[in-house]
Amino acid sequence: MSSLRGIQQPELSKKLYKLIKTENHQVSAYETASRESQSVASQLSEWGETQDDAVSDISDKLGVLLAEIAEQEDLFAQHLEDSRGVLKQIRNTESSVQPTRNHKTRIQDEIQKLKYKEPTSTKLVTLEQELVRAEAQSLVAEAQLTNVTRQKFKEAYDLHTAAIIERAEKQIMLAQQARRLVNLLDDTPTVPGEERPPFENSEAAREVLNDAEAGLRNYSPSIEPIHSAAGRLGVNAMPGSIEQEAAQPRIMQQAEEIVQSPQQETMGRGGQVPYSTSETSYVAA
Amino acid sequence: MSSLRGIQQPELSKKLYKLIKTENHQVSAYETASRESQSVASQLSEWGETQDDAVSDISDKLGVLLAEIAEQEDLFAQHLEDSRGVLKQIRNTESSVQPTRNHKTRIQDEIQKLKYKEPTSTKLVTLEQELVRAEAQSLVAEAQLTNVTRQKFKEAYDLHTAAIIERAEKQIMLAQQARRLVNLLDDTPTVPGEERPPFENSEAAREVLNDAEAGLRNYSPSIEPIHSAAGRLGVNAMPGSIEQEAAQPRIMQQAEEIVQSPQQETMGRGGQVPYSTSETSYVAA
Repeated sequence: MSSLRGIQQPELSKKLYKLIKTENHQVSAYETASRESQSVASQLSEWGETQDDAVSDISDKLGVLLAEIAEQEDLFAQHLEDSRGVLKQIRNTESSVQPTRNHKTRIQDEIQKLKYKEPTSTKLVTLEQELVRAEAQSLVAEAQLTNVTRQKFKEAYDLHTAAIIERAEKQIMLAQQARRLVNLLDDTPTVPGEERPPFENSEAAREVLNDAEAGLRNYSPSIEPIHSAAGRLGVNAMPGSIEQEAAQPRIMQQAEEIVQSPQQETMGRGGQVPYSTSETSYVAA
Repeated sequence: MSSLRGIQQPELSKKLYKLIKTENHQVSAYETASRESQSVASQLSEWGETQDDAVSDISDKLGVLLAEIAEQEDLFAQHLEDSRGVLKQIRNTESSVQPTRNHKTRIQDEIQKLKYKEPTSTKLVTLEQELVRAEAQSLVAEAQLTNVTRQKFKEAYDLHTAAIIERAEKQIMLAQQARRLVNLLDDTPTVPGEERPPFENSEAAREVLNDAEAGLRNYSPSIEPIHSAAGRLGVNAMPGSIEQEAAQPRIMQQAEEIVQSPQQETMGRGGQVPYSTSETSYVAA
């Protein structure tokens, strides 16, 4: 059903829409992995209850560490979801730019038709004025789109990769403690009728859990920062220093130059134009 | 449907049977996570194709790194499956010990009944001889069970924790390279009509991929070994030095002592007796 909705997405945001949908499945898969790993951890502990003192103690505590490892998997899924939320901001901007592109293309088409059918029509002047306005809107929208795209792209993959590193670093620490724990179990084979010596590593096992807990408590990620120059991005998705009203005459002039330039004729169908237009919500902001 | 089969498992191996079944779901969840992450990676690259040169190049290469991270997720699932296979060996031994326990309990029950109904029956002597043999078998089986359990438990969680560490170490390396890559994208905001300077980090981006590849190629895990003293375990799941035939008279004598000891009466129902009996396949091995 959701794939039908995908078809209704504007062309411009279709690919990102698809990616964001797949990321939803990815997040779900990690949530499931976390849940199943939690179950495995508690079932290990339950199995251990039926075993001798040594195996019972070690498997119970190993279950605790595995449950913590599973917990990190769920936290990872949450962080992926955060990163996904940031990508949605690019997608929303893409969607909002689409009508502006369509509008410009429609006016260009009308002008072309009229020039062919009625080359002396006075309506051509009105349409060309309209095209200049559409071009100005387009310049703003495309600048907003590239600004939002780059900023949010960096932000999304900052979160995504930091999440991978955090999960990994914590799980390494926990798995290392788990290995210390497993090493406390003596697997020297016995002969029939021989009793195993009593388990003496109970305290050492307790200490492993304490160390693991302390390790999590004192954890801080060791990541190189991702730098952003977008901090100055204003609410209108423009550099903070640009004041919309002051910029307006300059943008209009540029739009006029573009409309009157000879290559405008050949560019036509709005597709991969370097910069094309925006929702009023953006311009007004 | 598989839960019905679970009910038919011998009591002794039920808990481990359940754990192994849940681990199957866990493995599947990681396989799904890997698949979805692969899709996300290639959809990122496809989206990038519609973007400007800089975003296109960075997102394409980021897709390559994310695909490699997804690949590690699948390798992790395979390693979990290996660990799961080792746990099955404990479960199989548990299942094979069950009939021996049942056999001993049945003889004990018969003796109790006969002592009450026909205390002078000559059949009692035969039954007690049978019980000594069952007890001897039991001593062997329980020794085998504890030997196999401890050895395979350590082996299984050696594999399991090593898998966590390997995935984590490789993914940290890949995520760090991914962050280097993302940092190559300039997100300085532009003003309408302003062209972005041409992308000059193409070579640096290529280098990131090369470094990531080299990192994977030269990877070696940094884990503390898990020690095992079970290396001497023979095919009969006994210490290698024990020769079954030489040990037989000693085991029979111990079995007799156990059967004739006063607490034998009270122990009765075969449950958590320190050592109980084995499949012929084990004794014969």
